[in-house]
Amino acid sequence: MAELSRGSGVAVATIKYYLREGLLHPGERTSPNQARYDESHVRRLRLVRALLEVGGLSIASVREILTAIDSHDRTYDVLGIAQHGLPLNRGSANQRTEQWAIQRVEEVAAKRGWRLELRQAPVQALVGVLCTLRNLGHARLVDALDTYAEAADRLAESDLEFVVGLPTTESIVESAVVGTVLGDAVLVALRRIAQANVSARRFGDERRG
Amino acid sequence: MAELSRGSGVAVATIKYYLREGLLHPGERTSPNQARYDESHVRRLRLVRALLEVGGLSIASVREILTAIDSHDRTYDVLGIAQHGLPLNRGSANQRTEQWAIQRVEEVAAKRGWRLELRQAPVQALVGVLCTLRNLGHARLVDALDTYAEAADRLAESDLEFVVGLPTTESIVESAVVGTVLGDAVLVALRRIAQANVSARRFGDERRG
Repeated sequence: MAELSRGSGVAVATIKYYLREGLLHPGERTSPNQARYDESHVRRLRLVRALLEVGGLSIASVREILTAIDSHDRTYDVLGIAQHGLPLNRGSANQRTEQWAIQRVEEVAAKRGWRLELRQAPVQALVGVLCTLRNLGHARLVDALDTYAEAADRLAESDLEFVVGLPTTESIVESAVVGTVLGDAVLVALRRIAQANVSARRFGDERRG
Repeated sequence: MAELSRGSGVAVATIKYYLREGLLHPGERTSPNQARYDESHVRRLRLVRALLEVGGLSIASVREILTAIDSHDRTYDVLGIAQHGLPLNRGSANQRTEQWAIQRVEEVAAKRGWRLELRQAPVQALVGVLCTLRNLGHARLVDALDTYAEAADRLAESDLEFVVGLPTTESIVESAVVGTVLGDAVLVALRRIAQANVSARRFGDERRG
């Protein structure tokens, strides 16, 4: 285990914790005090840390995703379960604005040819955030929804290109989950950088004013 | 205060907490037990709740953003402070991969005409996430960075259109912060919906297999 810790950069106490929580499969027992760990353990450790620390997922969500990866179900079903476990910020919907928000979401979905089910977590999250925007008096930001949806569609097509060629359901799901969680972080960071540059071009002139 | 609570939908205990934490300006005292609150309090309460609950910001970050909004500094500076307070997922950079990641980020910035400073929080966050992708063995996802950066640029241009027409620095900064924090949530939700649709088109066929 000391060797696994060195190879993966994960502390021994953390490895023990992951083993207890079922996030890591036990090594092959070679003596009462020793077990053999292989490349699959190193790989799984890295995935678990990325999901927990970069993705901000709960232990329970990570366990659910790993179970899905290891279950050898159909790729499509496993992808659904894995995506479902990923966290989403939810706004606070209320009845007064919910119907309005659902209609905006259905309009944008129709334009993009998306099939929607209202009970899906991302759809509910989106409806909640739109309600919050409206309750905050920023409903006009919702006018940009088409622009955002178009960007999301283009990114999703690009994301898919990276996973379709992979050989196993496990690798497809792992890549999709890592790409989704870390892709969110990449996109958020890039958006801040782009905003700072656009804002400097527009408002930077004030400095000389 | 009971009236403010009804008007804003925020519990009295929460309002008192925000007052203590300096997230809400005191009302005009009209008697030892009474104070008058106006529309500015309702508006501020909604902003604070959105930043805390949807944006996931810390109390300290919200206080910093509010101070920036209220400081009547130049719009550009206030925007910088406000953006700086927003949380970002950071990956774990290490020296081995950091130089590689910085080079990828500089390449993409050069293509888009962005000016970068490595000490900026979003740049550091991006470098960290790219390092994590590589450490996880998913470096090839970084090939999609140009596609992501192009989408980020288009969204930033669209975001700016919504704030340039606003009359005061306060309203520009408030709108930029709300749009950035809630825009992240909108984008993440839309990306999941788009991915599910693209994935259904590609992998849904398995169901019939």
